[in-house]
Amino acid sequence: METLTPPGRPGAALIALDWGTSSLRGYLMDAKGDVLDQRASAHGIQNLPVPGPEGFEQAFAGICGDWLALHGKLPIVAGGMVGSAQGWAEAPYVGCPADTATLADKAIVVDSRLGVRVLIAPGVLFDPPDANPDVIRGEEIQIAGALADHPWLAERACVALPGTHSKWVQIQDGRITRFATYMTGELFAVLCRNSILGRLMPEAPAADAAEADQAFVAGVRLAREGLPGDLSHQIFAARTLGLTKRLPPDVLKDYLSGLLIGGELVSGLAHMRDSIAADTPLLLIGDGALCRRYVRALETIGTVPAAQLENTAPRGLFQFAQKAGVLSHD
Amino acid sequence: METLTPPGRPGAALIALDWGTSSLRGYLMDAKGDVLDQRASAHGIQNLPVPGPEGFEQAFAGICGDWLALHGKLPIVAGGMVGSAQGWAEAPYVGCPADTATLADKAIVVDSRLGVRVLIAPGVLFDPPDANPDVIRGEEIQIAGALADHPWLAERACVALPGTHSKWVQIQDGRITRFATYMTGELFAVLCRNSILGRLMPEAPAADAAEADQAFVAGVRLAREGLPGDLSHQIFAARTLGLTKRLPPDVLKDYLSGLLIGGELVSGLAHMRDSIAADTPLLLIGDGALCRRYVRALETIGTVPAAQLENTAPRGLFQFAQKAGVLSHD
Repeated sequence: METLTPPGRPGAALIALDWGTSSLRGYLMDAKGDVLDQRASAHGIQNLPVPGPEGFEQAFAGICGDWLALHGKLPIVAGGMVGSAQGWAEAPYVGCPADTATLADKAIVVDSRLGVRVLIAPGVLFDPPDANPDVIRGEEIQIAGALADHPWLAERACVALPGTHSKWVQIQDGRITRFATYMTGELFAVLCRNSILGRLMPEAPAADAAEADQAFVAGVRLAREGLPGDLSHQIFAARTLGLTKRLPPDVLKDYLSGLLIGGELVSGLAHMRDSIAADTPLLLIGDGALCRRYVRALETIGTVPAAQLENTAPRGLFQFAQKAGVLSHD
Repeated sequence: METLTPPGRPGAALIALDWGTSSLRGYLMDAKGDVLDQRASAHGIQNLPVPGPEGFEQAFAGICGDWLALHGKLPIVAGGMVGSAQGWAEAPYVGCPADTATLADKAIVVDSRLGVRVLIAPGVLFDPPDANPDVIRGEEIQIAGALADHPWLAERACVALPGTHSKWVQIQDGRITRFATYMTGELFAVLCRNSILGRLMPEAPAADAAEADQAFVAGVRLAREGLPGDLSHQIFAARTLGLTKRLPPDVLKDYLSGLLIGGELVSGLAHMRDSIAADTPLLLIGDGALCRRYVRALETIGTVPAAQLENTAPRGLFQFAQKAGVLSHD
């Protein structure tokens, strides 16, 4: 089947899949990396239509089977948890320093039963002699996208990617040199859902946005004053401030959120200053609403990020495809 | 009904109830505070036979109805969550500084339908102008017992009570002057049960006790090296050390336990040194096995507790009863 390219518009050249734990996003791209079409499905690797390889095949056919039928056997690249040990096929971690070329060099191939090959990017392992190992998988692709669009950051930057497991990643000379995971989002979720702190917290968000912001900022300030090990004491304030009616119940979540995000920032910035120049630009990548909370927290502790980006994964997957040489014009 | 006192053995003079969230313990005491008989039931205030006041009456009759039938209308004292807003009757918090006389002064009375009065001790609120409020309820009674038996500690001591919510309490001139809650035990439980960290952890304890101890000590050491806000990053090591096979799965819990207990100790000792002389004796009160973990962690960071006590609540309830003047010989 031949693809009919509308006049003046380049044809489909690549399918890029951002395949995480809880979601799967597909992008149909042209040879310049512009997105022609996109889809999202809930078929993250923990939520496949059926378990095992069959589940990956079905989710894959669901997200881009019609694109393949329409455009022929396009090259396909994928990044994220799809390459983990629980993924479609394991793409073992590469070490630091790592750049997009490293990812391309160590990518692995899955032959789909749709008759196309899927090139899966590896994650990255940071394994220093003097600290515990750490891992990222998916964020290296987002970073590749960010650096492609903002080459001035490639020389030296600190990239914070807020989320369930936030990542703080240092970039030097275009390569990922070190990083750290913070379980901020998950800690917040389990404390609200499963600990005594949740008992005083209503489901609904705060009625008064200004009050919620004030509580969030108070949480950040508490984190800023913290000594090592204080966190398991500090979080108890999300109970006592409610018990003593110093804070209304509907802003206790905001207070806890400020405290946890504030702690992450205090630690992340301190480690950055330890290992890279203090004037290194800070880049935020992630969901817009969550990044706005981080910007508010940074403001409270007197720091301003150099840039804030959302969904850089498609751009990063395109960079990965280019480096891997799977685009027909390469 | 008259109580027949065996020759040479003093008669029953008091019933003391240590009534917490998940358990109820009853002690039949003589006029010197020696325990003549004791019981435990699972009828903590969150686990009553039926909800509401009727549940408290039933649990009360169950734990000591026969003692009352046998010994007549003895004075009865109670401490712990039974005096909270969710308890049998609320005994509002008293402020700091507080000693056993303060507790006795602000105790409240419940008239049970068994025809006896139950004197319930209040909790204590620490509400400094420069920090968040904090509360204890039950620990003030344990401390009263500890200080009665170890009067040399009453002048100046730091008391750590490990548990679901650990408490660090400062004593000066026989009074509780300040304290802090650490959610260490609960944090450990929710991380093992409800977070991604639990996925690599088997249910069963470690097969090799020496390996488990080594992992615990490694966790404490990591905590000791921590900077402010590091905790939400540090806990992720309980995953990466498993993923990279640096630690066997069955000691990951010990590692996390060491990290969380270590963090509590680092913070608790630092705040103690901030507000009270560094040579202040440290007293541990609590479950023997848990206290032994704390002693091991303290040893790792170069500190030795002055004493370690278990179940000082009966002794403390007796002190409370004496101060309240409910013992017939007072």
